[in-house]
Amino acid sequence: MRMKRKPWADELYEQNQNFYKKFPYDIKGNWHNFFGNDKPIELEIGSGKGGFITQLAKIHPEKNFIALEINEMALAYLLRKQFELKLPNLFLIIGDAKEVDQYFEKQEINNIYLNFSDPWPKSRHEKRRLTSPGFLDRYQKILNKNGKLTFKTDNQSLFIYSIKTIANKSEAIIDKLTFDLHNSEFVKENVETEYEIKFSKKGAPIYMLEAHFKKGDKDE
Amino acid sequence: MRMKRKPWADELYEQNQNFYKKFPYDIKGNWHNFFGNDKPIELEIGSGKGGFITQLAKIHPEKNFIALEINEMALAYLLRKQFELKLPNLFLIIGDAKEVDQYFEKQEINNIYLNFSDPWPKSRHEKRRLTSPGFLDRYQKILNKNGKLTFKTDNQSLFIYSIKTIANKSEAIIDKLTFDLHNSEFVKENVETEYEIKFSKKGAPIYMLEAHFKKGDKDE
Ligand SMILES: C[S@@+](CC[C@H](N)C(=O)[O-])C[C@H]1O[C@@H](n2cnc3c(N)ncnc32)[C@H](O)[C@@H]1O
Ligand SMILES: C[S@@+](CC[C@H](N)C(=O)[O-])C[C@H]1O[C@@H](n2cnc3c(N)ncnc32)[C@H](O)[C@@H]1O
Repeated sequence: MRMKRKPWADELYEQNQNFYKKFPYDIKGNWHNFFGNDKPIELEIGSGKGGFITQLAKIHPEKNFIALEINEMALAYLLRKQFELKLPNLFLIIGDAKEVDQYFEKQEINNIYLNFSDPWPKSRHEKRRLTSPGFLDRYQKILNKNGKLTFKTDNQSLFIYSIKTIANKSEAIIDKLTFDLHNSEFVKENVETEYEIKFSKKGAPIYMLEAHFKKGDKDE
Repeated sequence: MRMKRKPWADELYEQNQNFYKKFPYDIKGNWHNFFGNDKPIELEIGSGKGGFITQLAKIHPEKNFIALEINEMALAYLLRKQFELKLPNLFLIIGDAKEVDQYFEKQEINNIYLNFSDPWPKSRHEKRRLTSPGFLDRYQKILNKNGKLTFKTDNQSLFIYSIKTIANKSEAIIDKLTFDLHNSEFVKENVETEYEIKFSKKGAPIYMLEAHFKKGDKDE
């Protein structure tokens, strides 16, 4: 998703600095303070235009939500939504998934959502896949004891790769697994993303897994 | 697969006692001796009518093959094949998968094949599924260090269940995983079973996984 920042986006970012933060190293360990409450914090990594996370934030006022996105132009669409909605339990981060453990303290996060992450099919790009072992280790660090990781994709190869890394190279337990989310028992609690709507319209099955880590914190 | 033994089967069993053994407790630890060579031994559990294992035995004279089947009538069809083929590297066992560690010594087996195992969909029957944790532990015992477990099925629920038990409740590493064996890179080395031919004719995708255990032997 390569998009140049457009003038409207620049203005939006300029005028809505309370809704987002770029590289929030200084909030690490202080997110509950930052939100001004003790509600559990859920994080979407690679939120794109943010249809999923704004939906969740509306449905679940009892939780806080953070959208992390590396592409400022994609995030601008979410910022525009938030400018209209002004959801008190939603905050946006411009940043890189590689740095999640620099934005969040150990066990600070309750749930991580990966939705339609870039597949990076070439094996020399394996490390960029958001379900590669290095990323899983970081997720384990920032997730708390009951924390879970939810991953959805239309990409079968990425899904198979992800099952293997989770099964073979992490301390995660797979709790839910479906090869066709929209025709599974899990559909009732499902919130669709922009990519999901697009791909399922084409008739592609959506793969989903949910996992938790045996120990909440990698270094314990 | 409920079949009564028929008269022709009785006669076949009677006249071909050198090709099979019922509950071979006394051969445990002595299978190489029994085959009269040091070739690796591969085991199919629930071989049914035996199209798969006779094929393998023909293609791979450098290996020994054992078919384990609980249903004497199903195995009679395999015995009839073997009566014609007289493959020196194939032996049949009438027995129960539950007892594999009573038929085979630790690390005596090189590969285990589970093909289209009965799905036992009800959760109260979980323990009967041939990929449930109790069975996986027995397989780990009898497999040697390089040994692998190969599992094929058309049954998506059983496959998902199996991925979860292997990932969550065993010390196995998943090496191969496909949701559509016949359209995957693994098809070239695939040998079809009777059930596989039947189900793939109907257009059902065949699921396959291959795994090995971190330690060859559970008790080490
Ligand atoms: C294919 S899009 C999916 C967007 C959205 N989740 C959906 O399902 O509609 C993947 C998104 O992940 C973002 N992304 C990729 N790598 C990232 C990283 N390292 N950190 C944060 N976001 C990333 C991309 O910029 C893109 O917006
Ligand atoms: C669905 S059939 C598949 C037969 C064959 N593998 C194929 O793919 O055509 C499953 C077979 O497993 C056998 N089986 C089931 N439970 C078993 C057990 N505990 N030990 C040995 N064989 C078993 C059944 O008798 C049946 O022949």
